[in-house]
Amino acid sequence: MIKKVTRATISSPVAKETACPVARALSIVGDRWTVLVLRELTMGNRRFEEIQAQTGATPQMLAARLKNLETDRLVERRPYSTRPLRHEYYLTEAGLAFYSVLLALRSWGETWLKSDKEERAINYTHIPCGQDPGLGPVCEKCGGEMRQDQLLPRFSEAFARERDARKAAFKAARVKD
Amino acid sequence: MIKKVTRATISSPVAKETACPVARALSIVGDRWTVLVLRELTMGNRRFEEIQAQTGATPQMLAARLKNLETDRLVERRPYSTRPLRHEYYLTEAGLAFYSVLLALRSWGETWLKSDKEERAINYTHIPCGQDPGLGPVCEKCGGEMRQDQLLPRFSEAFARERDARKAAFKAARVKD
Repeated sequence: MIKKVTRATISSPVAKETACPVARALSIVGDRWTVLVLRELTMGNRRFEEIQAQTGATPQMLAARLKNLETDRLVERRPYSTRPLRHEYYLTEAGLAFYSVLLALRSWGETWLKSDKEERAINYTHIPCGQDPGLGPVCEKCGGEMRQDQLLPRFSEAFARERDARKAAFKAARVKD
Repeated sequence: MIKKVTRATISSPVAKETACPVARALSIVGDRWTVLVLRELTMGNRRFEEIQAQTGATPQMLAARLKNLETDRLVERRPYSTRPLRHEYYLTEAGLAFYSVLLALRSWGETWLKSDKEERAINYTHIPCGQDPGLGPVCEKCGGEMRQDQLLPRFSEAFARERDARKAAFKAARVKD
């Protein structure tokens, strides 16, 4: 079992200033780029360029966010090639646990930030019951917890197209370089 | 019933760029000061100076965040005095619905960003069952949803002292001006 994130409790000035868990959380994830990086890692995008393509972050921004997430022990770097040395980024237990916040943001965004004409970007199948759990926080069909490892995502056509287009645009831009 | 937040779906560039509800949400709440303001409004602090005292934001930062939250229709301004004209800030339905995100941040922060010696900043009583619902997303005692209007907060001594001290420090600083 991976140890708990301790930096915020020990070395972060925010942790010394306040007992508020929300303020402490924001000292680590209170930046939209950091949350977008966690979104990509949660979706299984582990490589720097994949994350860059889907978040639209500059390499400098992304490198800084990943470094902080590693220091904060939400992310672990693991080599997948030695020549040249290349790393993949994995969520730690603390990083995986952040899924509950992403799920709440998804629910709020789908409910309040979309027109009635727009469909959900991702629909899930809740593996324990085999049905669409809805927006959560618990499965609206079986009442069970929506654990990320028990959710099968199905992208909407629009969202799938959008992500493919980002990947293609990113590759095309690199070829030009 | 208050209409849904529409700015992000109509005028925000992010809404045009992506169908992702998380990215859309972050275009509105992807800034730690904005979330701290929503935390205070959720706690019932409706006045500019109360929010300033508890978030530690400068007046300029706070004014900008409140203005954006109003434009995004998470917050409504209501006059409470006419001479001089003074306003209180209230959460709209969309702003109240953001509580689920604050609750998820609380749970993640209490679980991962505290030492075992530290107690929870706030414990709740879940009114429907009269027991401590724990960290959620649903009451660990009765399994019911943790709706903000059904939760009775009880501050820890440390957190109560911390908030009183902030209020006192803010007043003292104003007297000096």
